This record gives sequence, C-alpha cells and structure tokens, in this order.
Amino acid sequence: MKKRYASVLLPLVALVGFAAPDTALQKVRQYRQAHELPLLKEYMQFLAVPNVAADSANLRQTARFIMGMMQKRGIRAQLLSATTPGVPPVVYGEVRTPGAKRTIVFYAHYDGQPVNAAQWAAGLSPFQPQLATTLLAQGGKLLPMVEAGQPISPDWRLYGRSSSDDKAGVMAILAGYEALAQSKLKAGVNIKFFFEGEEEKGSPHLSEIVEKHRTLLASDLWIICDGPVHQSGQKQVVFGARGDVNVNLTVYASKRPLHSGHYGNWAPNPALELAHLLASMKDSTGRVTVAGFYDDVVPLSPLERQALGRVPNLDATIQQGLGFARPDGNGQTLNELINQPSLNINGMRSANVGAQAANVIPTTAEAALDLRLVLGNDSKRQVEKVVRHIQRQGFFVTAQEPTDAERARYPRIVRVAPESGYNAERTPMDLPMAREVVAAVQRTTAQPVVQLPTSGGSLPLYVFKKINAVTLTVPIANYDNNQHAENENLRLGNLWDGLETMAAIMQLK
Amino acid sequence: MKKRYASVLLPLVALVGFAAPDTALQKVRQYRQAHELPLLKEYMQFLAVPNVAADSANLRQTARFIMGMMQKRGIRAQLLSATTPGVPPVVYGEVRTPGAKRTIVFYAHYDGQPVNAAQWAAGLSPFQPQLATTLLAQGGKLLPMVEAGQPISPDWRLYGRSSSDDKAGVMAILAGYEALAQSKLKAGVNIKFFFEGEEEKGSPHLSEIVEKHRTLLASDLWIICDGPVHQSGQKQVVFGARGDVNVNLTVYASKRPLHSGHYGNWAPNPALELAHLLASMKDSTGRVTVAGFYDDVVPLSPLERQALGRVPNLDATIQQGLGFARPDGNGQTLNELINQPSLNINGMRSANVGAQAANVIPTTAEAALDLRLVLGNDSKRQVEKVVRHIQRQGFFVTAQEPTDAERARYPRIVRVAPESGYNAERTPMDLPMAREVVAAVQRTTAQPVVQLPTSGGSLPLYVFKKINAVTLTVPIANYDNNQHAENENLRLGNLWDGLETMAAIMQLK
Repeated sequence: MKKRYASVLLPLVALVGFAAPDTALQKVRQYRQAHELPLLKEYMQFLAVPNVAADSANLRQTARFIMGMMQKRGIRAQLLSATTPGVPPVVYGEVRTPGAKRTIVFYAHYDGQPVNAAQWAAGLSPFQPQLATTLLAQGGKLLPMVEAGQPISPDWRLYGRSSSDDKAGVMAILAGYEALAQSKLKAGVNIKFFFEGEEEKGSPHLSEIVEKHRTLLASDLWIICDGPVHQSGQKQVVFGARGDVNVNLTVYASKRPLHSGHYGNWAPNPALELAHLLASMKDSTGRVTVAGFYDDVVPLSPLERQALGRVPNLDATIQQGLGFARPDGNGQTLNELINQPSLNINGMRSANVGAQAANVIPTTAEAALDLRLVLGNDSKRQVEKVVRHIQRQGFFVTAQEPTDAERARYPRIVRVAPESGYNAERTPMDLPMAREVVAAVQRTTAQPVVQLPTSGGSLPLYVFKKINAVTLTVPIANYDNNQHAENENLRLGNLWDGLETMAAIMQLK
Repeated sequence: MKKRYASVLLPLVALVGFAAPDTALQKVRQYRQAHELPLLKEYMQFLAVPNVAADSANLRQTARFIMGMMQKRGIRAQLLSATTPGVPPVVYGEVRTPGAKRTIVFYAHYDGQPVNAAQWAAGLSPFQPQLATTLLAQGGKLLPMVEAGQPISPDWRLYGRSSSDDKAGVMAILAGYEALAQSKLKAGVNIKFFFEGEEEKGSPHLSEIVEKHRTLLASDLWIICDGPVHQSGQKQVVFGARGDVNVNLTVYASKRPLHSGHYGNWAPNPALELAHLLASMKDSTGRVTVAGFYDDVVPLSPLERQALGRVPNLDATIQQGLGFARPDGNGQTLNELINQPSLNINGMRSANVGAQAANVIPTTAEAALDLRLVLGNDSKRQVEKVVRHIQRQGFFVTAQEPTDAERARYPRIVRVAPESGYNAERTPMDLPMAREVVAAVQRTTAQPVVQLPTSGGSLPLYVFKKINAVTLTVPIANYDNNQHAENENLRLGNLWDGLETMAAIMQLK
C-alpha cells in the first residue's frame, strides 16, 4: 500500500505547478471587472431575503429568488421537493454542453444559521447587507452603497447572514457560469446546479431528494462550494468533511425560580450542576474525557498524512489575530486537530447575566453541544457515548420534561435532545478527476492550491455517497468571516476569485 | 451568659401566647373588608409604574406616585435625596401622635429587580398587573379586573414586578395607617414613613441619606417590611438579615466567534473554562470549596439557636412543591443553611442555546454570582477569597476588558466585577421592644408567630446601625411569590394580613 501512494506523489506535485493565467481566465476576469456593480447589487438583494434554517416561508422565497437568478442567465430552473410539506426545496437546473463526455454537479446551500440580531455590531443587521472598508473589528468603516463608476475594492467586506456561508457559493457558481457564457467561452462538461435549503439544519431531507432524483442527478463529480479558503488566503480543494451532530442539554432543578437569599445553600442550582457536568466532559487541555470518544477513528492514509504535512501552518498568526495565549490540544496543530472528533459548547444559558441578572436560583440550565465526527465515528454511537458519560456523573437522562415522579426520585435530571446528524466522508486524494480539478483551480491562481484531506467543518457528503457520487469541496469564502455567528461577512475579492474558480472547473473537458 | 439567655426564655414564650382578636383588630379588619376594591385598584396602579432598579426616570415617577398615596391619607410627604443627581430619592413622611413616648420608622422599598419580559408566562407582563385565581403554575386562571360588589378571594394572586417585593411593603404600611386613622383608632407611637428606591441595587446611597437626616430619622425602632412570611403561612418576625454582594465574571477566549468545525479542538472555549471555574467553587453537595469561605462566621447565640429550633421545619413539603429530590447541604435543614454564607450562580451565559444556538466557539462566557454573608463575614473580604480562588485555578483576573498584551500573555483570563455589597446584621432576640413587637403581631393571628434569628435574604441593616437604630424585619409576602424572578406575585390575603400587622405595630404605646 505504501508503495502505491508513494508512486502517486510525483504527478500530484507536477500538476499543481504554478501556471500563468490563461486566455480564458483573462476573459472571465475582464467580464467580471466590467460587471462588478450589477453582480454586487444582485448579491445584496439576494442576501436581503431572510434564510434562517427554521423559517420555511422565507426559505421558499429565497428559493424563488434563486430561480430568478438562474432564469436571468438562461438556465431552466426547477424545484426538487421532499414528500413532507414545508421542507425547503432544492433549486435545480442544468446546462448541456454539446460533445461533453462528463457531467459535474455544482452544489451550494442557500439556508443560513440562526441569528440573534441584538448581538450584531452597531449599524449591522443580519438581513440588511452592508458594505465596509475592511473587517469592522480591525477598524473598518461602514460604506454607503457604491455608485456606478466608483472603484470597488476587493478588500471590502459585505456584512450579512450567509454572505459567506453559503449564498456566496450560489452566487459564485451562477456568476462563474454567466462570465463563461457571456465571454463566449465554452463549458467543457455538462453542468448541473444543485442548491440546497436545509444544510444548516443537518440536511434531514437531502437524502430523500437525492435518491428520488438519482437519474436526473447522474454525474461524474459533485463540486461542493461551501466553507472558507485557507487562512493564508490560498485557494483550497478539500477531499472530505467532518460529520456533525448537535446535542441539547437541559438540567432541571426547582420548578420555580427561588430567591437566592431565602433558599441559597439549600435548593439545588442547575447552573452549578451543568457546570460540573460540562467540566467533566473535557479536561483543561481540551481533551474530551468521555470514555471511548476517540476509539473508533480511522487513521489518515499515508497520502493524506503527506498532504496534511504540506498544508501551510499559520497557527501562530491566527492565534495572535484571535487574541488567545494557548490553544487547546496539547501542542498539536490546528490541521492535526481537525482530523479528530471534537466536542464543543456552542452555547450555555441559565437565567440571566449582566443588567438582567437577578438574585435567583434558576430553574433550568441549558447547553448546546456540537460533536464533530471523523471517519470511523458514527453520529448515533458518538451521542450514546456522551449519554453514558452523563449517566455516569449521576444524572437521570430523559428525552422529555421530567415528570413529578421523576423529579421526586432523581437528584440530578437532564434532558438530552440530540438533533439529526451525519458521519464524516473522505474522497481518495489520488482519484484522477480530483487531480484535474486541483489543476484547474491552480490555473486561476499564482499561489499553490492547498489540498486538505478533510475540512474541520461538516457537509452531508454521506448523502452523495448513497448514489455513488464523488465529491470534492472547493470553498471560496475568507477564513475570517464570522461564519455561523454575528457579523458574518464576505471579502469581495473572495467572491470574484470564487467566480473564476467555478468558471475554471466548468471548463474541464 | 448562658444563664441570662435561659432566664429570658420564659417570658418570651408567654408573650407569644395566642390572643383572641381584639376590638381594634376587628375595626381595622372591617375597614379593610369594606375597602378591598379601592385598595386593590390603587395597588394595581402603583404596580403599573415601572421600577427596575437601573431605571432612574421611572423610579422618580414611582416616588411621586407614593407621595400621592401619602397625601391622599393626609401624610405630608417629602423626598430625601442623595447628593449625586439621578439617585432615586427616599420618600419620607411622618405622623406625630399626641402623648406618644416612642417613635417607629416603617421602612419598605419601592424599586424592583430587573425583568426579562420574555420569560414571563403567557398573558403576564411585568408592569401590567394581572389577577389570577391562584398560582398559575398550580392551574390558576387569569381574571378580568374585579367589579364593585364582586367578592375578592384572599387566595387570588396579583402578578407583576414588585407585587410582593417590595411595593407590597409600601402598600401595607400606608393602608395599615389608613385603616387605623379611618377607624378612629389611635396610633400609640409617632410614625415615620421611609420608602427607599435603591434596595435592589444594594442601597449604595442609603447610608448617605440616613446619616444626613439622622435627626429627622431619630427613632426607637425601625420596622423593615420586606420579604416573605414563613413557608407555613405563619407570620414572622425576623431579627437580622444576611449580607449580600454580587460578583460578575466574564471569561474571555477568541476575539471573534469561530466556526466550531474549522476551529473546534484548537481554539479555547470560554464556556468550558467557565464551567471548570464554577465547578471548582462548589462540590456536588453544594458546599463552597473556596478556601476560608466559612472561616470568619460568628456562631449563633444560645438564644438564637433555641429560637431556630422552634421554627417549623417544612423542608420536605417545600421540596416536594419545588420538585427536586435532594437538597444541597449534606442533610442540614433550610433554617440551618441560611445561617451560613452562600455562593449562588444567579445566571450563566455564553453565546446562544435552543433555537438561536449556532455551531460556534463563543468569544466570552459570563456568570453572575451572589454571595450571601452572615455575621462575621465582610463583603470585601468574602469577594477577595473568591478572587484568590479564581487565581489559584490559573486565571489572570482583571477588572477591565483584557488588552491585547494580556490576551497574548495569559492562557486563562477572567474579568471580575464585584458590585457594592454589605454585611449581615442581627438584633438581639431579648430586646424588650422586640418582645413587644412580637406580641403585637401575635395579637393579629391565631397561629404562632415564627421568630427567625436571621433572614436568608438580605437587607442593608448596617446602614441603620450607623445611626444606632434598632431594626426588626416584619415581612408580609407569601413565600411562593417568585420574588426576583419572572411571574412575581402576591397572594391578596397576605396584603390584607400585612395591613393588620402594620396597624397593630403602630398601636404599640
């Protein structure tokens, strides 16, 4: 096995040589430079349509908006729906290329993570997209809407929910196709467009839709346009993604909030119980202490390990920018650590803090956990390990609000509510078509393309595997994008680069 | 010493014999029964004036409302202000009784704890007082406003912020005086009314105001009308109160929220750090593990210990009603435990939970702590113990947002922001005037009056000690009042009982 991988390495390196920008790229770039303002305006309208994953009415409107974007570009669009009513549909379209031998599906998702508008910076609102000169946190100033003839800086940031995750993917794919078509350049492959509306919810109906339309979706490759490029700014091709499952915990104490003076020392405090529970799950180095947590991990192949070794290590720089003195992980690098399963506290809450804090013993304490999975982990099995750990800490675990009988019987009660999750997937790094994609992306940039065995983030790649599809992830967003949080933003240069990347892949023969 | 206390016990028991309701009480009761509706209407208008401790404009309006209530009853009212502008004034008034030898100041406070309206039950709003047939949590139904002639049940609940803590005190004192005056009964003492507006903020200016008006406030006794009666429903006289100081903690990690997939396992999680920190402060029995936390406690006197032994123990009943299986405190009773210092988590927050949770590594995690103090503890010293404990857990403690240099240097950073606090006080249980008050209260009820050496809750009694005043706390609210939290309520019968209690004390000679 080792020999085979070793022999593959030479052509791999040769293919990623730094090619000079070609004529086709020049044409695509010129088209984009001439159309930045209308593209930006269209994108801002797109961002103004709310797309929170739980809001199906707005998601339907977002889907309709995308159909309009596709029709404007001469792409016949249709909706692929799940059987369950109210599920956000997939927006689908295709363009056949005469004489093409291969078909590539371009995937992005149009739904976004939940928002708490109150947490966004002054002047920002999740669904009122807003330009700024650079990152606000680094002194950027908000900009009025740009006017015709005014230069648009690639370093400007566009703030708004999904500006980078992942309406940017939809926009880059459609604008990339537009630039190609309008520059009289030919696509080399048949192109299928596939825009999902449930990714941030864990894609619970993607499998059903994909399997139902298995024939329609027949392809040689899926390009998943989601996530950030490397922290160095270098373009990136990613061969896999971690799996993901969320688990919500609610610890119960008294049925009603109590005066902390009259009952403090006697009535149990759910925030303290939750603190003990969470503290028991990870040690001070960030190592998960849940029994068996790391047991079923499939190790990286030698080829993957070698690729990982070539990924630039910017840990010190990133760490400095983020402003903390010591990373978790006992000295392992970020790249090494995203190849391990993780347990993260996404959020924690009990009663109130700050100006709203009152002298009470709270009734409940909640935490939202996020478990990332690597190859070998199973989402249900990983949750079971956590549940067993919680039980070992003396908690009665229930799936519902506790009954009076349960309250009377068990000193520690926690409701555990796992969401639907999915497992990790990885595409072999020596797959010939993968090499072609890396080469195509490499032709659009003077910097080496970073090749990652797996992304730290998650994608429902297991769904595509079910129809025997091959996937490669080609992300375009800037890494400092506040993805999933308040003040999400896209660096405009990343949208333009992404457009060129997508157009280049569409020109594969 | 032991002998002295022992000799005091006999008269103490004799005085609390169950007296039959006297004629004066009958008159006061008849007056109240005939005026329940106008009293209730006035109280609801009073509750509708917002009074959150941080909101000085509304607190001034509340103070003006109280002046109106006093003027209506023929009491000349004035405001006693602090030097600092914007501080809610004390509303003061007095009534001289010809021939009276003694003077009693009646204290209550008109400010309330913070509110989070979203947490109140459906149909309730903190400043739109609302009647219900009983506790909503026990199946109570909301009631329309009562009309003339309609019977008013003493078991009805009146929902709204400060309905029990502590506008109920203001209302009971003024209505008690009204019933006395309108029934042509004579007060036996000179009466001074003193309504504070900063109690829930820790009374930062009370000392200044009291010392400035030392002569005006000369008295033989202060009656503090605040807090709940005993959980048995029995009336209560309380000889002291725990001290209190709040401490706010903010743990800092990355400057910007991070995608939990791309950075999970590597970027430190402030919620986890806070969980470790809080878990280190108390063990699983609720015992505080901060070094020296219990060291400087002054033990109860033999008389106090004996009184404590006579307090009804309803722990099992209360526990069942609250719905938890095991209290903290290693088998000690609630009454024993409120005579010890406490450390309570009032609230805890990091990013979001539930529908707003996103897959992020939060930037900060906050906790609001409440330290209750008993005789011997000092609020500053107690905070210092906690700070030293935090430092021993490896945290750099700062009073401000950390600087970039501090972020680069210290792996664990927490901002510690203590609020102003105060110490505990206790009035000796054998004080003759205290015995008279207990006897007066006893005359209004067929149940034995509970005598507590100290309240679990806190009152700024140290301020009155500065002008050598003697204080006794005579609370009136129901114990299941959700004081300090959402769905605060007052049982109407407790308001009527409180009115009778206050009128009885005013009749002391």
